Amino acid sequence: MDLYSGHINKLIEELAALPGIGNKSAQRLAFHLINMPQDKVNRLAGAILEAKENVRYCKECYTLTDQEVCPVCANRNRNHGMIMVVENTRDLAAYEKTGKYEGVYHVLHGAISPMLGIGPGDIKLKELIERLRGDVEEVIIATNSSLEGETTAMYISKLIKPIGVKVTRIASGVPVGGDLEYIDEVTLLRALEGRTPM
Amino acid sequence: MDLYSGHINKLIEELAALPGIGNKSAQRLAFHLINMPQDKVNRLAGAILEAKENVRYCKECYTLTDQEVCPVCANRNRNHGMIMVVENTRDLAAYEKTGKYEGVYHVLHGAISPMLGIGPGDIKLKELIERLRGDVEEVIIATNSSLEGETTAMYISKLIKPIGVKVTRIASGVPVGGDLEYIDEVTLLRALEGRTPM
Repeated sequence: MDLYSGHINKLIEELAALPGIGNKSAQRLAFHLINMPQDKVNRLAGAILEAKENVRYCKECYTLTDQEVCPVCANRNRNHGMIMVVENTRDLAAYEKTGKYEGVYHVLHGAISPMLGIGPGDIKLKELIERLRGDVEEVIIATNSSLEGETTAMYISKLIKPIGVKVTRIASGVPVGGDLEYIDEVTLLRALEGRTPM
Repeated sequence: MDLYSGHINKLIEELAALPGIGNKSAQRLAFHLINMPQDKVNRLAGAILEAKENVRYCKECYTLTDQEVCPVCANRNRNHGMIMVVENTRDLAAYEKTGKYEGVYHVLHGAISPMLGIGPGDIKLKELIERLRGDVEEVIIATNSSLEGETTAMYISKLIKPIGVKVTRIASGVPVGGDLEYIDEVTLLRALEGRTPM
């Protein structure tokens, strides 16, 4: 599209390549950026470059952090014998927000997906097994409740059980506040299977 | 939120300040940016800074361009006696895409909106009147069909008529391919009022 000048087109193209940003949004964003005050533009571009430069994997749990060891792993008050396996740093943050989980994490950076060609070697699984050599009592698998997440959970559980470490899976069921009427059948059945005594 | 490290938080904050990007999208984008290859990150940050640095107003029609005079105004085959007034460069691009408009444009960079505190002095109106001193036959007002767009159209028309230049407004009605059943009443009445002999 050569409706705009070169620099605008190039910016629109770069923005449209980001996830969840279509061509129309990219156009709107591009003009917003061009109309933004120079100092704000510098701040945004700087934040992108600095985050890219300074953020790396925590050398223990592989979450994204700008320290060598992330705050959770560095916290000696956390239970380092309990490892929750999540797909990505956002999922870790979701559990941290609850403020109730006292163990540590392991971030896989993905899930096994034959459809997308992502195999066990493409996620941080080897690194998880490495960690089990230490004093680990329980591995809680908190991958998503999607096909990929479930596949990954099954794979990990089969991998870990022979090592003799306890493996658990977070519960799947009706979300709190959820109205049964609007919940899909698979979830309803899952909730039934997972029923607990009260 | 201090769930993430400083550099990630800063990036999320800057992204969430952009229009149409909420906190969740900003998080997703931030992690995508951090995981992107370094050269792509550099290209994006560079495109933002370069667009901001090189894009300015066309000195004739005030559209955003990286030349002194935009390609439309520089084109001597266009009818420079016919000026279409639009709210922004994206609207100009929308009409350019039709490939059928042979006149030139005038970009207001906004619309009059008492609600948002945007008055006639805040958009490129003085500059439009300036241009009418030249050899202009017709001003086509193509502001949006919103409250602000209509207000602006009325205001401009009252301003220009005394000068003796012909002022027209683009038609408002049922969109091509639109099903009457799903069109709002105001549009339906507008379409009726604007009916043309066939």
